[in-house]
Amino acid sequence: MRRNRMDNLNTKEQNEIKLNLDTVLEILGNPTRRAILSKLAKIPHSTSDLHKALGISRQAVHSQLQILKEHNIIEKIDPDERGGKYRIKTNLSISLNISPDYYNINYDIVEIEPKSKKMFLSDGEESIDYTDKSPSEKIKYLGERIMNIEDGLSNLDSRRKELLQRKESFIIQLKNLMKKKFKDKLSPKKTEMDNLELEIFYTLFFEMSRFQQKINIDHLLDELFFTNLDRFSRATHRTSIEELLRELSNTIDVLKRIDNDFYFVF
Amino acid sequence: MRRNRMDNLNTKEQNEIKLNLDTVLEILGNPTRRAILSKLAKIPHSTSDLHKALGISRQAVHSQLQILKEHNIIEKIDPDERGGKYRIKTNLSISLNISPDYYNINYDIVEIEPKSKKMFLSDGEESIDYTDKSPSEKIKYLGERIMNIEDGLSNLDSRRKELLQRKESFIIQLKNLMKKKFKDKLSPKKTEMDNLELEIFYTLFFEMSRFQQKINIDHLLDELFFTNLDRFSRATHRTSIEELLRELSNTIDVLKRIDNDFYFVF
Repeated sequence: MRRNRMDNLNTKEQNEIKLNLDTVLEILGNPTRRAILSKLAKIPHSTSDLHKALGISRQAVHSQLQILKEHNIIEKIDPDERGGKYRIKTNLSISLNISPDYYNINYDIVEIEPKSKKMFLSDGEESIDYTDKSPSEKIKYLGERIMNIEDGLSNLDSRRKELLQRKESFIIQLKNLMKKKFKDKLSPKKTEMDNLELEIFYTLFFEMSRFQQKINIDHLLDELFFTNLDRFSRATHRTSIEELLRELSNTIDVLKRIDNDFYFVF
Repeated sequence: MRRNRMDNLNTKEQNEIKLNLDTVLEILGNPTRRAILSKLAKIPHSTSDLHKALGISRQAVHSQLQILKEHNIIEKIDPDERGGKYRIKTNLSISLNISPDYYNINYDIVEIEPKSKKMFLSDGEESIDYTDKSPSEKIKYLGERIMNIEDGLSNLDSRRKELLQRKESFIIQLKNLMKKKFKDKLSPKKTEMDNLELEIFYTLFFEMSRFQQKINIDHLLDELFFTNLDRFSRATHRTSIEELLRELSNTIDVLKRIDNDFYFVF
């Protein structure tokens, strides 16, 4: 089925396809498409350039370019030109962390409008006055600044990793606490509802800032059930979530109920 | 072809499959598999739990679990138990940034051995002495700490975004400089080799820290050509890269040649 979805993209009718996480991950799961994007991020290439550079058939390059184009990830620089060159026209940023006790995917997919691209490039703060420098000096200067940024990025990454590990270790402690608290309920056999109750609890803690203050039950539903629920199942699940939140709020102080709304208080 | 690869995983023979970026992205491109992982990160679930929770057929859940298991992403807690529960056994972390002038994918995929997991959990620094606290106070305490960490993470993320934007803006300036420098070469028509020369140059700047000091030409080859090259094409490409690096080192001061080695100096 997934295969078919990708293949269908080759029909002209569907040339404005909304990018979502599934599609982006699927597109980037293919090493040839990644290779193409990596090349285009450096220099615009035509089908024929890519065919030569990657050593794969023109037809294969063409069909991958079509997929990327129909998802608005790339565009032809001069759309009327036969054999014209392609460039990237989307900002994709995805960060993904999955481990035994933690799951988080963040993503940001923005199609670049010519206008916003211009704004982005003319970022005032970064304009450099180096009129008196030779081209070589300029290159060196830019290189040094890029190098500093890379050091900064790698510092941020190690701090991020550290924080994520600490977060996971706190979540593990929380899980141990909850196991004790729910001991009677959990043995000898969990019911579906008890599972869901704990899941609701952990979901609140996995992305606390998202659920801070008044808890948006629709967000919680999306987090817990993913699949496109029909209206009826959505309502049913909503009712059980509300019931379980009510129950949780009776045992756990940080969850407060006011009328039919729930608040996560820290 | 990709479809087949995934389907083949259902045969018992292949149950130690090495995880690589392609596979991980392909696995996570499926929303049902993501839903399963998100659930398992909260609470171990059996096939039957997942079938009820996600509202999809037992057979569909089973086949997704098989794929995840055969890639060593999840495991059964008690392998001998029929209908046992699954948990995640891998640390996956991927960060990915693609934009018109920048391409970078970082990933870290670590299968967790029971031993290392234990080490990770007993992280001394984070053990908290709260013997005098009630369970509710403990939950509140942990919640506050997790909240702080989330604030920290979101700060890091916005600084990261900022740095990446600055890096991209420097790379754009670099590209403009190089366009001037290579003006004669670039017009009226680029040759393949000139393209590659610029690509080499930008590749060095995309991940400067990777190429600092002596340039590892094998890394450069991997970055530029991706596909699994046979030994002959690899040697050919190597020769042209060396030739182009020699040429670049004649025009660009930050690239030094000593004997047959190249050094990127900042």
